[in-house]
Amino acid sequence: MATNNSMEQLVIGIDIGGTGTKFGIVDRIGNVLFSSQLSTKNYTEVEAFIDDLFIQVNKLIEQAGGSGRIKGIGIGAPNANYYTGLIEYAPNLPWKGIIPLAKLVQDKFKLPVVITNDANAAAIGEMIYGAAKDMKDFIMITLGTGVGSGIVANGKLIYGHDGFAGELGHNIIIPDGRLHPGTQKRGSLESYASATGVAITALEFLEKSSEPSILREVPANEMNSKKVYDAAILGDQLAKDVFEYTGKILGMALANFVMFSSPEAIILFGGLTKAGELILKPTRENMEANLIQVFQNKVKIMISHLKESDAAILGASALAWDL
Amino acid sequence: MATNNSMEQLVIGIDIGGTGTKFGIVDRIGNVLFSSQLSTKNYTEVEAFIDDLFIQVNKLIEQAGGSGRIKGIGIGAPNANYYTGLIEYAPNLPWKGIIPLAKLVQDKFKLPVVITNDANAAAIGEMIYGAAKDMKDFIMITLGTGVGSGIVANGKLIYGHDGFAGELGHNIIIPDGRLHPGTQKRGSLESYASATGVAITALEFLEKSSEPSILREVPANEMNSKKVYDAAILGDQLAKDVFEYTGKILGMALANFVMFSSPEAIILFGGLTKAGELILKPTRENMEANLIQVFQNKVKIMISHLKESDAAILGASALAWDL
Repeated sequence: MATNNSMEQLVIGIDIGGTGTKFGIVDRIGNVLFSSQLSTKNYTEVEAFIDDLFIQVNKLIEQAGGSGRIKGIGIGAPNANYYTGLIEYAPNLPWKGIIPLAKLVQDKFKLPVVITNDANAAAIGEMIYGAAKDMKDFIMITLGTGVGSGIVANGKLIYGHDGFAGELGHNIIIPDGRLHPGTQKRGSLESYASATGVAITALEFLEKSSEPSILREVPANEMNSKKVYDAAILGDQLAKDVFEYTGKILGMALANFVMFSSPEAIILFGGLTKAGELILKPTRENMEANLIQVFQNKVKIMISHLKESDAAILGASALAWDL
Repeated sequence: MATNNSMEQLVIGIDIGGTGTKFGIVDRIGNVLFSSQLSTKNYTEVEAFIDDLFIQVNKLIEQAGGSGRIKGIGIGAPNANYYTGLIEYAPNLPWKGIIPLAKLVQDKFKLPVVITNDANAAAIGEMIYGAAKDMKDFIMITLGTGVGSGIVANGKLIYGHDGFAGELGHNIIIPDGRLHPGTQKRGSLESYASATGVAITALEFLEKSSEPSILREVPANEMNSKKVYDAAILGDQLAKDVFEYTGKILGMALANFVMFSSPEAIILFGGLTKAGELILKPTRENMEANLIQVFQNKVKIMISHLKESDAAILGASALAWDL
């Protein structure tokens, strides 16, 4: 925790996830000064959730010197729409239908509120505090259970005409490829380049070949990207091939994204990036192989600079500086 | 030609193509008041080209009431870079290497000059004078000999960090698909959804099946998209299948673009759009089929509102209003 001028303005970042909600008070350079959390899934009613959130956040505000110093509240949440302030049909939240989240929080806290989805928040966090500090054009890709994205061009996040831009995880990379159970579409990036996708690829590779592999000892329903990673680190060829294949598809997708908005960098965030060069090397090589000449050897593929434990709060909080 | 207030400001639009260069004087609402053209391919030296261009454009400036009314010059040219003012290694122009076009024209005309590539110019033309007049988020796709694109988000054209953004024709849609002779990449949108691509698809379909078709009478080296269109209009099933297939690939690509920047509309321009519903229907259907729910039934696919004979000049001229 950094020292902090008592007159300096602060913002509140709230990251609402399906299981838990993290929140904290953040200064201009990205120090999370005070933070806490709340269980999301315990609240079947959003109003009760906001009541308790208000009590908990206020404790932090008192610690930080009172609400006079707070510029506003930024919230990252699944399916949150920046333009409308609504959460719309979020499959992973306990509250169904359309939730006027920004208005509910604003009425309770009497502070300006802005919301967006998690991946957009991560991109803004990276721009305000992280690896993209001096960039006007970059793409943030979150490689977790799913694949999310936030796109910045001309120094501004691209929300699109309806607030839903940046669903790069659902780009079709392999026509007629793997079925995505959530969307019922085939061949999307998320079906391959997510933690879930890596586990499925491993099971497919095990089934297709008779090559010896440590992963043959893992029951199918316990296969996950961490186990594939551990096997690859031990030199398991099949496990290494899984990352090679994942990187091939991710690299092809990144090439397409580069030829869209010509970013200075692509910043990767989330669980899969822990595989490091195992996935980065094939990703980089296949991105370059699919780029036309004018884009080659220019675009950096970087890992997020935000500390993972703070990243969700930082991303959400970063939104509030523009209020 | 519209009537025109003598005090009104005007701009000059210059569209430089490999064969010819068109230029004209344009008013605020997109009337091309005076226009003319010059052969590009006759000039092996860019300086001689600019000398003659200066003479010809000045005749129009005189007709329009003198240079005091001219706000600036917008130029659309292949491989032109908005940021640097350079044309870099344009394969279709007679001048090789790196040409400091903006500076050369500015020094000669003593007027502010801005340049960009043809597809970006078309997008700005559509935004200033055409179908995208009130849009802040749209994508322009030019379907001609090749496939070009210009992308507008947050009301601004996306140039990317280096000025080269918007090469959607080179997005890989069919991994390991058709080889593009110019880029040596496989499966790009341009390999399929261009006039050239349609001709190749027709030849492939003729070779693969023994289905009767009017197109069997066309020698391979004379096959083109116009002949495929004429055959389709006469009810030729194979020719109709060619457009169906082209629309399938184009639709899949458009779905990916929509999930990137969530545009209000996709505006199509160029020769292939003359095929009308033959290509638009499968394009629309396949775009929708590949979109996740949140984007479905929202994005208009439109044909450019700019008159084709004026479009190149209008697009280039539109750039100059921001000078």
